[in-house]
Amino acid sequence: MTYCLGIKINEGLVLVSDSRTNAGPDSLSAYSKMRRYGIPGERQFFLCSAGNLATSQAVFTALDKDMREAVAMNLNTVASVDEAATYIGELSLEAQAKVTGGGPAFESSFLLGGEVLGDIADLKLIYPEGNHISSSRQTPFLQVGESKYGKPILDRVLTMDTNLDKAALCALVSMDATMRSNVTVAPPIELVAYTLGSLQPGRYRRYLEDSEYLRELKVQWDRHVIAAFTSLPMINWQEADQP
Amino acid sequence: MTYCLGIKINEGLVLVSDSRTNAGPDSLSAYSKMRRYGIPGERQFFLCSAGNLATSQAVFTALDKDMREAVAMNLNTVASVDEAATYIGELSLEAQAKVTGGGPAFESSFLLGGEVLGDIADLKLIYPEGNHISSSRQTPFLQVGESKYGKPILDRVLTMDTNLDKAALCALVSMDATMRSNVTVAPPIELVAYTLGSLQPGRYRRYLEDSEYLRELKVQWDRHVIAAFTSLPMINWQEADQP
Repeated sequence: MTYCLGIKINEGLVLVSDSRTNAGPDSLSAYSKMRRYGIPGERQFFLCSAGNLATSQAVFTALDKDMREAVAMNLNTVASVDEAATYIGELSLEAQAKVTGGGPAFESSFLLGGEVLGDIADLKLIYPEGNHISSSRQTPFLQVGESKYGKPILDRVLTMDTNLDKAALCALVSMDATMRSNVTVAPPIELVAYTLGSLQPGRYRRYLEDSEYLRELKVQWDRHVIAAFTSLPMINWQEADQP
Repeated sequence: MTYCLGIKINEGLVLVSDSRTNAGPDSLSAYSKMRRYGIPGERQFFLCSAGNLATSQAVFTALDKDMREAVAMNLNTVASVDEAATYIGELSLEAQAKVTGGGPAFESSFLLGGEVLGDIADLKLIYPEGNHISSSRQTPFLQVGESKYGKPILDRVLTMDTNLDKAALCALVSMDATMRSNVTVAPPIELVAYTLGSLQPGRYRRYLEDSEYLRELKVQWDRHVIAAFTSLPMINWQEADQP
């Protein structure tokens, strides 16, 4: 399984991904699911993948090859994040078609955040079928993979006005909730925070299994959540209705 | 969809259930999914259902009929919660077999909490296949239906030593997280808290859509969670690894 999360708020973009790949519970390995591309001052892209590893790797390889061979359409030439998402969707479909003869199978989904000079910054979810959606003011985050455990914290905390550091912290807490409930989501955890308009690579962290910070975050969050309980209004059993 | 949660801790049992039934998003209705049975001083059972409504109702009807007709095996005669769970599992399989000719289909799952004089209190999850599992010291809660959104809060807060009121509160927060993320889980919310060894019906509440308490719980929990964020250790971007 996988958990990748993208956030787009007024201040910027945050993407976080785990690194566990499994072909059954007895076949675990660690692969980075995050890629960063860009030309400082001109364009920046952050790409996370979930799903079939062969398809994801084929897409990453094709992206590199197209840039290296400077074909007409590549991440260094696309005019917008929207165009990049369409291009990645096509590469994904091509990778699937090679092994199936056509139609989606061995599916991968992608989260793409980025900005190109002269166009809007955007966050996209690219479906295995090749099409894509953007985040919105009402839904400032998109998820792929094991999305349910980590969603309540995002629903409660994130708004368009959340600052970038808090959004990155929220992303890590969402990842922590997911890792705790699904053993096939695991470190290394990769995190990137990009300031809108900067067109620079953004700030990046990778947290390993034994990360002291991840441990501290978990311990403190547990403590705060437990403390929060003590201040909630208690149930009034006296007004009891009968069923 | 449905969300039902059962908790068994040292002090007692908590069960909570929503009341939304849907046959597609354009066919919503409200049905109670919780039943309480018992003879004060001798036995108490709390039963919640998730899954096919016809199967769940058939089981509830059969339970009532067996007690009314005083057949050999009914909830007033079973010697333990374990025996009750096996009996309910058989009724569930029978209800399914009537419409399928055999084998599980139109599946329902059940949570059964209870206690019979002279035997241990227990919390059971009864599968559509008719078999069942108990909660344990390591896993003091069991869920049926839409279980993922409401699980992180349980993982963080519940232990065997949590007191009964806090466990009931935790169950409502878990339900709140689920309702927020899945519109097919909705009030009325039914909640019961039973003190181990009491063999009395326990305390019961039903919260309607416009419940002031549910609203207040949601607002205050949101506030606490957002406040908790301000005290978490911030990300140290300075130690940045390169990918």
